[in-house]
Amino acid sequence: MTSVLGVDPGSRCTGYGIIHDGPKGPVLVTYGTIRTESDNFPERLKQIYDGIYRVAKEFRPQEFAIEQVFMSKNADSALKLGQARGAAICGGLSAGLPVYEYAARAVKLALVGKGSAEKSQVQHMVRAMLGLTEVLPADASDALGVAMCHIHTRQTQKRMALPPGVRR
Amino acid sequence: MTSVLGVDPGSRCTGYGIIHDGPKGPVLVTYGTIRTESDNFPERLKQIYDGIYRVAKEFRPQEFAIEQVFMSKNADSALKLGQARGAAICGGLSAGLPVYEYAARAVKLALVGKGSAEKSQVQHMVRAMLGLTEVLPADASDALGVAMCHIHTRQTQKRMALPPGVRR
Repeated sequence: MTSVLGVDPGSRCTGYGIIHDGPKGPVLVTYGTIRTESDNFPERLKQIYDGIYRVAKEFRPQEFAIEQVFMSKNADSALKLGQARGAAICGGLSAGLPVYEYAARAVKLALVGKGSAEKSQVQHMVRAMLGLTEVLPADASDALGVAMCHIHTRQTQKRMALPPGVRR
Repeated sequence: MTSVLGVDPGSRCTGYGIIHDGPKGPVLVTYGTIRTESDNFPERLKQIYDGIYRVAKEFRPQEFAIEQVFMSKNADSALKLGQARGAAICGGLSAGLPVYEYAARAVKLALVGKGSAEKSQVQHMVRAMLGLTEVLPADASDALGVAMCHIHTRQTQKRMALPPGVRR
């Protein structure tokens, strides 16, 4: 049985969520948002790094899942997102977790069965699959979505007798 | 007396250099390049993070200086550079170093006296100021350039009786 930490990074808000892949199916362990408040950008990266590291050390997931990003609106926002993503990944790696990346399309396909699904459908499926009634913050929901995609991918590969998880 | 670690991050090559601001002027402590070889991008971020952390722990500089990046050719390269930059900054912060950022223009102004100086002039001045005869790799030279800019800025501020360093 594995617990997966999903992360949706951003320079101001980084969502995270942990799902335990238990004998009776996926169970929510925790979720939350790391809000970075400092005017000092390196300080914000440190808050993301420390936040992910602490969540990983507290809840002891075995694996880390994050969405791949190919495109961004512009170079400036890509640079900010990239730094936040680098800080989040380093936080997970420092806590000893292997990192798995999934394209946004793969997350939608795994959760909704359609790579072109709307974001709201993904959010709906995250709540349904975990049996939650509360409304999740968007970034935490996205983090749980990629964690769920990773669990789903592992299960499919196990059934197909492949080595668990395509390590990227 | 302070030693400054300057870093020029990149997803394939990250240059670093340490300059000691000694009683007889700046002295080169070390320089080098962290080359990341893995096809796995998170693994490359980990190599940058670990590389900077190890250099900081081995040579014990007190401060970390890095060039600000505002623009990039395109969103995809900005995203890669951003992640490398985030990993490098987290490596320095994890080793306990405060991070100072300088615009490329400020580095040129501090070293050559002209914000619009050519890159080759900056490289020439780095070697001249440190009394080096060898040719430096471009990324290590850029790293030493921003470290030198930080030392120069501190000295100027000390002379002007301001608190040392504008912490960003």
